Amino acid sequence: MTSFVPTPTVPAPDIVRCAYMEIVVTDLARSREFYVDVLGLHVTEEDENAIYLRSLEEFIHHNLVLRKGPIAAVAAFAYRVKSPAEVDAAEAYYKELGCRTERRKDGFTKGIGDSVRVEDPLGFPYEFFYEVEHVERLTQRYDLYSAGELVRLDHFNQVTPDVPRGRAYLEDLGFRVSEDIKDSDGVTYAAWMHRKQTVHDTALTGGNGPRMHHVAFATHEKHNIIQICDKMGALRISDRIERGPGRHGVSNAFYLYILDPDGHRVEIYTQDYYTGDPDNPTITWDVHDNQRRDWWGNPVVPSWYTEASLVLDLDGNPQPVIEREEKSEMAVTVGADGFSYTRKDGSPEDDRTGFKLGAQL
Amino acid sequence: MTSFVPTPTVPAPDIVRCAYMEIVVTDLARSREFYVDVLGLHVTEEDENAIYLRSLEEFIHHNLVLRKGPIAAVAAFAYRVKSPAEVDAAEAYYKELGCRTERRKDGFTKGIGDSVRVEDPLGFPYEFFYEVEHVERLTQRYDLYSAGELVRLDHFNQVTPDVPRGRAYLEDLGFRVSEDIKDSDGVTYAAWMHRKQTVHDTALTGGNGPRMHHVAFATHEKHNIIQICDKMGALRISDRIERGPGRHGVSNAFYLYILDPDGHRVEIYTQDYYTGDPDNPTITWDVHDNQRRDWWGNPVVPSWYTEASLVLDLDGNPQPVIEREEKSEMAVTVGADGFSYTRKDGSPEDDRTGFKLGAQL
Amino acid sequence: MTSFVPTPTVPAPDIVRCAYMEIVVTDLARSREFYVDVLGLHVTEEDENAIYLRSLEEFIHHNLVLRKGPIAAVAAFAYRVKSPAEVDAAEAYYKELGCRTERRKDGFTKGIGDSVRVEDPLGFPYEFFYEVEHVERLTQRYDLYSAGELVRLDHFNQVTPDVPRGRAYLEDLGFRVSEDIKDSDGVTYAAWMHRKQTVHDTALTGGNGPRMHHVAFATHEKHNIIQICDKMGALRISDRIERGPGRHGVSNAFYLYILDPDGHRVEIYTQDYYTGDPDNPTITWDVHDNQRRDWWGNPVVPSWYTEASLVLDLDGNPQPVIEREEKSEMAVTVGADGFSYTRKDGSPEDDRTGFKLGAQL
Amino acid sequence: MTSFVPTPTVPAPDIVRCAYMEIVVTDLARSREFYVDVLGLHVTEEDENAIYLRSLEEFIHHNLVLRKGPIAAVAAFAYRVKSPAEVDAAEAYYKELGCRTERRKDGFTKGIGDSVRVEDPLGFPYEFFYEVEHVERLTQRYDLYSAGELVRLDHFNQVTPDVPRGRAYLEDLGFRVSEDIKDSDGVTYAAWMHRKQTVHDTALTGGNGPRMHHVAFATHEKHNIIQICDKMGALRISDRIERGPGRHGVSNAFYLYILDPDGHRVEIYTQDYYTGDPDNPTITWDVHDNQRRDWWGNPVVPSWYTEASLVLDLDGNPQPVIEREEKSEMAVTVGADGFSYTRKDGSPEDDRTGFKLGAQL
Repeated sequence: MTSFVPTPTVPAPDIVRCAYMEIVVTDLARSREFYVDVLGLHVTEEDENAIYLRSLEEFIHHNLVLRKGPIAAVAAFAYRVKSPAEVDAAEAYYKELGCRTERRKDGFTKGIGDSVRVEDPLGFPYEFFYEVEHVERLTQRYDLYSAGELVRLDHFNQVTPDVPRGRAYLEDLGFRVSEDIKDSDGVTYAAWMHRKQTVHDTALTGGNGPRMHHVAFATHEKHNIIQICDKMGALRISDRIERGPGRHGVSNAFYLYILDPDGHRVEIYTQDYYTGDPDNPTITWDVHDNQRRDWWGNPVVPSWYTEASLVLDLDGNPQPVIEREEKSEMAVTVGADGFSYTRKDGSPEDDRTGFKLGAQL
Repeated sequence: MTSFVPTPTVPAPDIVRCAYMEIVVTDLARSREFYVDVLGLHVTEEDENAIYLRSLEEFIHHNLVLRKGPIAAVAAFAYRVKSPAEVDAAEAYYKELGCRTERRKDGFTKGIGDSVRVEDPLGFPYEFFYEVEHVERLTQRYDLYSAGELVRLDHFNQVTPDVPRGRAYLEDLGFRVSEDIKDSDGVTYAAWMHRKQTVHDTALTGGNGPRMHHVAFATHEKHNIIQICDKMGALRISDRIERGPGRHGVSNAFYLYILDPDGHRVEIYTQDYYTGDPDNPTITWDVHDNQRRDWWGNPVVPSWYTEASLVLDLDGNPQPVIEREEKSEMAVTVGADGFSYTRKDGSPEDDRTGFKLGAQL
Repeated sequence: MTSFVPTPTVPAPDIVRCAYMEIVVTDLARSREFYVDVLGLHVTEEDENAIYLRSLEEFIHHNLVLRKGPIAAVAAFAYRVKSPAEVDAAEAYYKELGCRTERRKDGFTKGIGDSVRVEDPLGFPYEFFYEVEHVERLTQRYDLYSAGELVRLDHFNQVTPDVPRGRAYLEDLGFRVSEDIKDSDGVTYAAWMHRKQTVHDTALTGGNGPRMHHVAFATHEKHNIIQICDKMGALRISDRIERGPGRHGVSNAFYLYILDPDGHRVEIYTQDYYTGDPDNPTITWDVHDNQRRDWWGNPVVPSWYTEASLVLDLDGNPQPVIEREEKSEMAVTVGADGFSYTRKDGSPEDDRTGFKLGAQL
Repeated sequence: MTSFVPTPTVPAPDIVRCAYMEIVVTDLARSREFYVDVLGLHVTEEDENAIYLRSLEEFIHHNLVLRKGPIAAVAAFAYRVKSPAEVDAAEAYYKELGCRTERRKDGFTKGIGDSVRVEDPLGFPYEFFYEVEHVERLTQRYDLYSAGELVRLDHFNQVTPDVPRGRAYLEDLGFRVSEDIKDSDGVTYAAWMHRKQTVHDTALTGGNGPRMHHVAFATHEKHNIIQICDKMGALRISDRIERGPGRHGVSNAFYLYILDPDGHRVEIYTQDYYTGDPDNPTITWDVHDNQRRDWWGNPVVPSWYTEASLVLDLDGNPQPVIEREEKSEMAVTVGADGFSYTRKDGSPEDDRTGFKLGAQL
């Protein structure tokens, strides 16, 4: 039974957008090869312990920090807030929630100023900051534009056991739900939540957590994503392509999931839609709709449901992973106990089953 | 043990290209919906028994004939030859081979003149013709250009039990091999063979045959293929998307396999390469190379290996299907008895297995 | 000398985005042919006097109203505000400015509720509304997706004689400047201003005004814009392609300008960048930079500088057009009295002039 | 009055395709920067006097040779023939025509074996070879694939005063005409001629000659060409973009013309159509059709008509340039003495002129 996170009496910080993720990697050189040589992220700064990377159209110092460490995990999901005062607001907000917080006037990473990090009610390390070093926005540096260029950080995705609890907490924090996946029993399997005017800044995926499901970067067009696959084939690392490319049902984006050398999952994503109106229609998908996760009905591989990255507390230790108690999306949709349909009415169409051929593992 | 088809003493007909396929469909209206409404092929002519379809850039009467009949099957794989005299050459060639042939001065279908159909040594109904009605080439009719426009017939693909036998026969007929799939024991699993300057006009896929594996149409760009998937999702017929989209290892083309209402397989295909030089390098792929069929290592669904369309003899009766005696590609690459690798040396790379995650069914 | 619009004491309405434009057309059937048959906008509703059109991803009733009338002109630039109360705020704001306003609880067009229209200080007919009929969002209706599909209304562009005056007024109204074009004498030639998180919801182009320069729709990818050109070629109306396609310097978007049957200019636009951060860097372009309007240095045709649509007052009469007194961008950049450079330092590079070949008309 | 080149009694050599061009450049380092750093051609081999370049999908040693020399010019238009014996055939053919020929068993360039170079009847340095060094075909080297990747040499384009004379000579040599531009007086302005199954291996453009109009490389998709423009903008060399990008009327290809540091013109080209059938329909365009050179009616810049590269004789001296006596395409289509139409019947359509706005220079 869901025990909701209380709603603080102080106002929530005014969040602008997801801004960067700090991940711990076990071999900095191999991770650099993946994120810089394969994916083409741009190095703002680096030393022997950390690499600060940004996407082409970014003007803040970084969207991704790779930090060397003993255990692959996520150290921070960092959001930019609207003004310096909103960092104070964030600190007060989480203090009232009884969460552990840590404020650093000089920031937790290079290029970022006054920040607060918290262990949030779901167990995730969230950061809020406003002050940041501006760097060259490479938008028109087409001399640097690779065939698979990543142009923006798009969103985070978090695994948490109790999606309604997480959703209510994030709604209090000012996020709005664009889409979700439910079943007719009222179970919520996932929810997509945004501050900026896209489908999400973060999403909650029901599962054992707190864990980081993926971090997503956007490309301009679909062919850029195909090139990333083609390049990974050429480099003979196609076994790091986990799922896709495909078209999402949820979000309508064209997508690809790949795995970095530590198994951290990265999504490449393009062309979702505008969500900036206050009454932007929320879309609820039936968990049994075979096109919800892939509009073409292509199967979701099991690892995509089960694998995710640990997240760290403010001391740098992994948070314990709590099991999801509700039904699992994988269990209810594939295999002996689950089912999916292509047509809601179950109409046979062509005297065939209504199941995607080959979709059942 | 392969018993080769003898090489005739008369010259082989000079084949220009694969030109059209005639397929028998059991419900003409439903097939029309698929090929015209979904795929957007252009109707040259139609009556209650047959529909004549062409791709955007075609100037001959048709690339596909849908003919109403009791059993879904293929009635003809039709090739265009270089001159009227080459139809005579084809007839003489197959007569010497002892094959049944039928010559019709007025053609077997509307829009085509003097033709010969044969039951070829592999059991396939091949047609050879030169005379044809020219129709409007719609190349610049961008007012008719759909988002998933099919612009050319690209190739046929035939299932035959004994690939080396078929290959030698087609080489005698003037085809040249661009690529093939083999193993270290010398077994050939498939071969791609061309007359025009692309990777193939037809391919041989090892399996129970004679059967038709697929007929392929080309688009201009990759996004056109993605649109076809998206549209099939919108029409809630994503269960007719059998495999892909993906990048082929063999041919390097971007591809998609879909199924028509009778289960006839259609490939949508774009961007293979020029093969017109006499010494065009032949590429041999190892059957265990996990990127041979899909450059990104995405798994081939079992139905793609096992399902195919019957072919008809000249009386319109289905040819009996003969079992392949050699090893099956599916068996040697997936499941308990097979294996595939991503890196030839089996290097673990990342302490991972070298197998595509999720690729094993 | 600029006489600035006073800043009201009441708060500005909280504007969400540009939402629709109402244009008067002289031949409704011919305009329908252009916007529906050629451009593929979707008809929400229509009668003998007006057609209500929306783009694929829109969920409000319309983005464009074509209204039959005697003089081709623009009847409204309509913005959506954040709540019903903001319509009151808008009314109060313009009343304090001494502008003529008209409030209609049932809206000025079908599908829109409580709205206020004003004759703004620059002479433009602005509308503010919140209430709106939701209609089917066609985002995933790929069965309706044309090769040149327009997916969103992107922005308006207004011609006004005094850009700094207009800019200060729009900044008071809550718009933020993303980019502008100036010269070293301090003359401003144009400014781009946004509420939503793109480069603009509207732009001010220096010239004789008030007039409407263009209304812009977005596509997903660049090839969609090319298809619109190709289709206009196929329909033999390439003389309605006024400028482009090209890459803008300002905004970095890929663009095309076309003319409807009345000469109203429509831009097709894709892939500008995120501007949602409070400190989003403003970019100032030198008016003599030959890549500011077209990143490839392709020339701007004179008509693009000189032609624009009349705008109507609240009685439906055309607003008088006032001449720009400051220097004209066309005059200072082309012809005998103007100049442009490709490289700022005027470096000859290749012993050539630094001028775009063929760029001088 | 055309004095035709006699038809030799010996058979014409069997030409496979245009294979490479050798151009003389005045500053090898600057040319390398253009062809390698900007355009991304792949270096097969280089020394202080020459650079051998190839496109991604090429398997012969090179498609372009840059040779250092005092005068920018073209040293050879090289065709590959079907077998070693065809080099003999070429030599005999031109000897009978009375042309100067030079045979080199070890080739004229690195990587090419037995070859013959001739000063052809039109004054062009043609080469014919079969023997060639095979190099790595980079087709699937997506790790090397740039955003503007050039994948094939597509064609040559030659300026010659008398197009019908050149055309008849090339038809004798085995080329077939795919398209041409004429007027109602019977004047031919240009002709496109092919051996491989594309629109052309070479084209004849009417003008003062012999000169080289351009050499063309193909990309896979249209966005690759747009990227080349974007990159040239980023490098502030947009003044080397001479014309385009656009859609050709003739050939239907998407195109771009750029200029190398010596003013040699390079076309980037994609998506023409299959021409391999013996009765491939020839398309004749009216010189006054405003969409013949650009399907969107965008104007052809004068330099494109007037500028071209010198060609060398077998001693390395520039061939004298002979003036075209017939009408010039530029003169008959633009300016006071010329005219073009968008609609053949001259229908006003929209009460407008039928001329492309801004198209008249």
